[in-house]
This record gives sequence, C-alpha cells and structure tokens, in this order.
Amino acid sequence: MNIRMILYTLGWVLNIEAIALLPALACAFIYGELATVPAIVITIVLCALFGVPLIIKAPKNKGMYAKEGLVTVALSWVVISIFGALPFFISGAIPNYADAFFETVSGFTTTGASILRDIEALPKALIFWRSFTHWMGGMGVLVFLVAILPLSGGSNLYLIKAESTGPAVSKIVPKVRQTAKIFYSIYISLTLIEVVLLLLGGMNLFESLTLSFGTAGTGGFGILNSGASTYSPYVQIVITVFMLIFGVDFSFYYLILTKRLKNALSSDEFRAYIAIVCVSALTIAVNCRHLFEGFGETLRHSFFQVASIITTTGYMTTDFDLWPELSKVILFILMFVGACAGSTGGGIKVSRILILLKSIGKEIKVAANPKSTVKITMNKRLVEHETVRAVNVYIGTLAIIFTASLLVISIDNMDFTTNFTAVAATVNNIGPGFAGVGPTRNFADYSVLSKLVFSLDMLIGRLEIYPMLMLFAPRTWKK
Amino acid sequence: MNIRMILYTLGWVLNIEAIALLPALACAFIYGELATVPAIVITIVLCALFGVPLIIKAPKNKGMYAKEGLVTVALSWVVISIFGALPFFISGAIPNYADAFFETVSGFTTTGASILRDIEALPKALIFWRSFTHWMGGMGVLVFLVAILPLSGGSNLYLIKAESTGPAVSKIVPKVRQTAKIFYSIYISLTLIEVVLLLLGGMNLFESLTLSFGTAGTGGFGILNSGASTYSPYVQIVITVFMLIFGVDFSFYYLILTKRLKNALSSDEFRAYIAIVCVSALTIAVNCRHLFEGFGETLRHSFFQVASIITTTGYMTTDFDLWPELSKVILFILMFVGACAGSTGGGIKVSRILILLKSIGKEIKVAANPKSTVKITMNKRLVEHETVRAVNVYIGTLAIIFTASLLVISIDNMDFTTNFTAVAATVNNIGPGFAGVGPTRNFADYSVLSKLVFSLDMLIGRLEIYPMLMLFAPRTWKK
Repeated sequence: MNIRMILYTLGWVLNIEAIALLPALACAFIYGELATVPAIVITIVLCALFGVPLIIKAPKNKGMYAKEGLVTVALSWVVISIFGALPFFISGAIPNYADAFFETVSGFTTTGASILRDIEALPKALIFWRSFTHWMGGMGVLVFLVAILPLSGGSNLYLIKAESTGPAVSKIVPKVRQTAKIFYSIYISLTLIEVVLLLLGGMNLFESLTLSFGTAGTGGFGILNSGASTYSPYVQIVITVFMLIFGVDFSFYYLILTKRLKNALSSDEFRAYIAIVCVSALTIAVNCRHLFEGFGETLRHSFFQVASIITTTGYMTTDFDLWPELSKVILFILMFVGACAGSTGGGIKVSRILILLKSIGKEIKVAANPKSTVKITMNKRLVEHETVRAVNVYIGTLAIIFTASLLVISIDNMDFTTNFTAVAATVNNIGPGFAGVGPTRNFADYSVLSKLVFSLDMLIGRLEIYPMLMLFAPRTWKK
Repeated sequence: MNIRMILYTLGWVLNIEAIALLPALACAFIYGELATVPAIVITIVLCALFGVPLIIKAPKNKGMYAKEGLVTVALSWVVISIFGALPFFISGAIPNYADAFFETVSGFTTTGASILRDIEALPKALIFWRSFTHWMGGMGVLVFLVAILPLSGGSNLYLIKAESTGPAVSKIVPKVRQTAKIFYSIYISLTLIEVVLLLLGGMNLFESLTLSFGTAGTGGFGILNSGASTYSPYVQIVITVFMLIFGVDFSFYYLILTKRLKNALSSDEFRAYIAIVCVSALTIAVNCRHLFEGFGETLRHSFFQVASIITTTGYMTTDFDLWPELSKVILFILMFVGACAGSTGGGIKVSRILILLKSIGKEIKVAANPKSTVKITMNKRLVEHETVRAVNVYIGTLAIIFTASLLVISIDNMDFTTNFTAVAATVNNIGPGFAGVGPTRNFADYSVLSKLVFSLDMLIGRLEIYPMLMLFAPRTWKK
C-alpha cells in the first residue's frame, strides 16, 4: 500500500473542502449571520491545518493500484464528511455531532435524508453549505481532483473507477484526466442552465442556486419545510426535467455535443430509463387521479415524484405516503432501480437491472439446454463475463448489506415499513422513505447507533459498495 | 420436445394422485363423513380418467433432456394442484375454485398459507387430504415416480434435478433411481418416528399423522384454529426437533446410516444451519423474555418459531406478530434464508447464502487486485464456476419475481408490511407472514388475481424458479 500517496490525496481533498466552504462563508457575511462565521472559519482552518502539510511534498512514487484507489476514495468520503459536519456542530445548529455527521454524509452522498425538524430555522449560510455538499458529491470529489491535478501512474484511473457509478466506467476520451474535465464542464453548464431557468421563474439567486445544487447532485435537500410543494407549476416542471437530465449517463451529453445524437439515443440504458419513467408516471397518474384537480395536475405530481425517486433525488411536491398502495409500491421499486450508470444518481442503476434481466434470460436458456452458450449484449456489444458476474454479485451484496442494516436498526423498535424503507432510502441515496421516514417526516427519532448504520449505508450506496467494504476487510491493512 | 414422454409422465402423476386420495376416502368412511365421499370419489375417477389412458402405452422413446425435465415437473405440479383442489371445491367446503386451488398449491408446495377462516369446520377427510398434500410435496411427486418406475434415457436424472432443492443435486449413490428410493425410505422412516413420538405424547392417530405430514413436508397446515399453541410442551418440543430434522439435507442421514458421522457433521451447510438456528433463537429469547413466564418457556417458543420459519414450515405456538421488532426482523430474515439444500424445506437455502457470502469475499479480493484468481470452496471442495453463477443469478431472479408479485398484489391496496411479507411467505413456502397475513390472520381477504399470483409464487418457490419460468418462455413451445 502506497500510504504516502493515499495521505497526499487526502490532503488535497481537505484543501478542496476548505475552498469549497468559502461560498458558504460569503453567504454568512451577505446575510449578516455573523454568529455562524466562526464555525465556518474554524472548519476552514482545521481543513487547511490537516490538508496543507500533507500536500507540501508530493510523493516520489505516485503509483496507485486498484486497492489504493478504493481505499483512498472511501477514506476521502469519510474524511470530508467528518470535517464537513463541523460547521453544523460548532455553530450549535445541530447540537449533536452524530446528527451533524448524518446530515453531512447525507449531503455528500446526495441522499438528502435529514434529521432536521425545522430546516427554515437554520442560518442561510449553513443551508447553502448543506446544499453545496450535494453538488460536490454528485459528480464526485476525486473526479474533480483528477480533473485539476496532474496525477500519474494509474492513480487517476483507479480513483475515477472507484468513485464513478455503474457496472463499468465509460471513458469517453482516451485520457482519464480529459474525461474528468469534460464531465465536470457538462455538470457545471447544466447546473447553470437550471439556475437561470429558475431565476426566470421568479426565484431569487439563493433559492435557485441551492435547489439547482440539490437537483444536479440528485441530492434532494430542500430549503423549506414544505419541500417543493409550494413552488409554482413552472418551477416544479423545470425541476422535474432537470432531475431526469441529471439521472442520465453524462456520456450521453458528450455524444450530443460531438453531434452523435443517433449514437446517444440508441443506448439501451437510456431507452429503458425513459420507458420506466413514462410507464411509472402514467400508471401512478391513473391510480391517483382522484387525489388531484384535473389530469394535468395529476401528471405534474406523478412525473415529479417518479423523476425524484428514480433519480434518487428525493424532492417532493406532495405527501406521496398518502397515495394508494400501488403507486407507493411503484415508487418503492424505483428506489431500487435508480438512475443511469455514469449519472449523479444512486440506486442499483438501470444498466445493472438490464444486465440482470439478460442474465435471467440466459439462465433460462442454459437450464433448457445445458450445453448452449448464450452471450449477453448491451448496445449491440458483448458484455464482458466479468461485468456480468460483478453485476450479479453486486445485487447479492446489496441484499446482504440491506439485511444486516435492517437487523441493527430494528433494535429501535420502529415499525417494519419505516425500517425497511429507511434502509432503502439511505442505501439507494434517495432521502425520504415511507411511514415514519415518509416525505413529511424524517430520521430524527432513530438512535445514534441507527444513524451511524444509515451513514454507513449512504456511503456504501454512493460509492457502490466495494470501496467501503475494503476499509473493513482485514486483508486491506495487512502488510 | 418429447411430448409423448411428457404426457406419459403426467399420466403417472395423475394415477399416483388417485391412489394418494384413498387414505382420505378411508377417513371419510371412518369418521362417517358420507357427504364428503362423492367429492373424493369424483376426483379419483377424474384423475384415473385422464391418467390411465396416458400410461396404457409407454412411449418408445423414453429419452428426456433438461428442457423436457423442467417442463414435465412444472406441468406435473400444476396438474396435481388443479385436480387436488377438486375435493375441496366439489364438496363445497371451499366454494370458490380459486380459493381451493390456492389452498391445494399451498399444500403441495409445503407452504401452509391458508384462506380458511375456520379450519375446524372442515370435514376430517379433507383436513387429512390437505395435510397429506404437504407430505407428498415435501419429498416430491416426481422423485416418488422415479423411485417406483423404471425410467431411462436420462429422464430420471432430469426429473429429479428439476424437482430437488438447492444449487446442486447430491447423488448419494451412482444410480438416480436408487438415490430416490433411499431418500423416500429415510423420509417415511423419519415421519413414522415422529408419529410414534406424538402418539406417546397422548395425541390420537389422526392428529399425530396430520401434524407429522405437516412437519415432514415442512408445510405447516395446522388442524386447529389455534395452530400449535394449545399443545403440551412435550408435543411442541417434538415438533421443534422434527422441523429442524426435516430442514437438513437428506444426504446427511444417509451418511449417518452408512456410519460416516464425521463426514456428515463436517458439512459447511449443516454447521451454518445449526449456528443460525441457535444464534437466532437465543437472540429472540433475550429480546422477548418479558413476554413469557420464565426463561424455559421463552426458549421453547423462540426455538419453536425459529425452527418453524427457517425450515419454512410455518407452525406457530404464539402470535409472533406481537413480538418486538428485532425478533420479527430476525424471523423475517430467516424466511429468506430457508433450510438446507436437499431437504424438504423452502427459502433460498443455507448453501446458496454461503456461496453468495463467499462470492462477496471473492469480489472484494478481486476488486483490490483485479489480476488475482480466487476459488470458492464448500466442504473443502471447489465449487464449480457454473454453480456459483447459477446461485448469484438465482438470487437476482428471485428479487425480480418478488418485485413483480409485490407490484400486482399491491392493487388490492393492503398495507406494505402485509403485502411484502405475504409475498415473502409464499415465494419462500412458509405460510404466515406479518400484519394482515400474520400467524393469527390469513390470505382470505386478497383478490382472486392476487391469489393466483401467490399460487404462482408458491410453485416458483417450491420448484426453485426455472421449471415454472420455462412454462412461460415462448422458446419452450417453439418447434
């Protein structure tokens, strides 16, 4: 293990966090929240205090292997969450550190699950920081690092691999660093377009920015206790469209920018994603038509909620916990389906579901004729055997982690629906679940132990299991 | 497809069913339930009417391939359930045929889920038949056929493969027919021992037989509305021990009979099974100690319920839906774990869980070092790559079937806990779930559509997915 290189990367991550806190600090001055200033300044100083010494001297051997990549990414996410929680804790806005940590992990992992009973009571600077963690976590901190820092020796490849979502990393251009730069450029541009569209809808800059951060990262932290339910239909529609946009593989936009629209639209995953969204939203609309005035309003709510859940954002315009069971089960299933691979969304990912379904087709054929050989393809290309195996094991691993989490949190003696959907909402990085963790409730009533389990689940979900498991595997730390 | 051979086998299955109805007919005479006699006689005549013509002339080509084996087994189970439901329907005991079919599928698949609100109102002959379907389904109808009928051309191997449980078929002796005979001998002997032990506990023959059928098949149909809660501690302990016994791989007993105790005890699956039972029961006992008088009684209930659920029997001595959430979640998890491969129990099976856990270990190692090769072993032997793949896909397939079932039954608008555990209880062949399908409630309130979904799930669970899916694959019926 190249410990020097891991520490060097962690140093950079902390320095980036220090810089990322500056807009929140500016916010505190702009809104005259002088009581919040010290908490943010202390956090910036602490980040720099640990971060700067680690990067002063670059290690001679910048080489990294898969293991170091996974460990570095996992540690980076734990470290930014530990430090990122400090402004909430030091300012007293969230007096319990376990709660502050939960909230920050929820932010960076773009989950959006909250322990705050009254969001509007928070200083604006902290609301800004809370939403900004979504934006940082969406595309990834290490991806950002790779884009700005000249790393070599395979480091950048392994870091990106460990932080990106989906069964296989799509390198759109041969150079990893260039890929990271392109992805971040698309990310920033799309976010800015949403900000502008929200400003045009009459929102102020603060609201437009924070809501866009939450949409872009598919996070879901709101800034009002009422979520997105009081916004105008225009704003709700803009958010719906942008949630769906950020749930698509970013290679899709690169293909469009390079005028390969046909290639982009022929993606199996993209087509399945759009089909799932439309079928789900229309079914829910029919199922819930008695709850709203007119079919237009019904469609607006059903598309908003479907987009919010499948992209694992977690915004809400209406209390979907009051919907009929069929609609709720559709949302429940979408919680697990998740967005496209290579997007900022969480969940299992549409492409993994497709590969699983194709594996099942293969298994039926092989059961009927044990000597037959069946190939699995995606986008008319053969899917490597290793990828198929990884997908199948991924889903099994998720089931085991899910089960273990459910077991531990059930000690708190909440009801089954609350517990089950709470784990689903955290491990898939959504935010709200049903019943006790439904859209109008939150995670405040759980014990500290459960909140730690949820924090772990959120990290496991965002980093797609293996980086976090690597931290706990005894082999990792053997010489 | 060797259609002639499929029909020939189905003919035998129907004839066996006609004969299997004779003890129930005898029951009707013994208990003077003459009103029930016609219903049973008509069913016997119908079975023979379809069955006898099909077996008069044996097909020249008795060869079968994997596909025919799967299709034959799936069709056999559907057919015996269609005919087996007739006594309930014709006698008017269950006036709705969909309900009678549900109850019969639940019997043969050893699920034990019921739509009857008052079991004790049923004629004794029908109670006997209901419990006897558990016993027939436990070891398998085709396994019985293979044991008594000289089949050749690979037919017997493919039939046994398609009907046995677990990731790989254990042939304990080279000849398939001999293996089937040994398994059935052990099955009959163990059942008789339980009958005798229950008789010694002061039960009458009728009770001893029906309860033993339910235990041996890991079915769970009771004969009292109160389940097993009013039985003496002695009887409850006997049932606990025998539920656990029938949840073990039958090769285990063959090894013991052939004096290879050490081999038997060194099985990874057996050890894991015992460990899971003890840890679960003890944890529940501590968690529920305030609910019972004294720790002895607590242990009796906790071991009974753990044995009942992990072996997927479904008997109950107490309303475990009132237990604390931790205990309920443990039972919920055991619903999926299930018994050992090669037992009469359902669920995913302990060996599949072990292989999944080892796959995860492998995946972590490969993630850390993509060039490493890691082998998966069970009982110190290498597990074939194909088996590992089949296990991982099996769990994924189960998840998809589970999801689809949950979606359809949610149309009935029951609550999430009821729906979720109802699917879990049927697809894993357990019987009771929680809330609306808890131990003191049943499946009566669901719609006909949902009951059909549950019936399909029970068959899918008992036959371990692929035989049933084969029926629905369009390729199967192409020439």
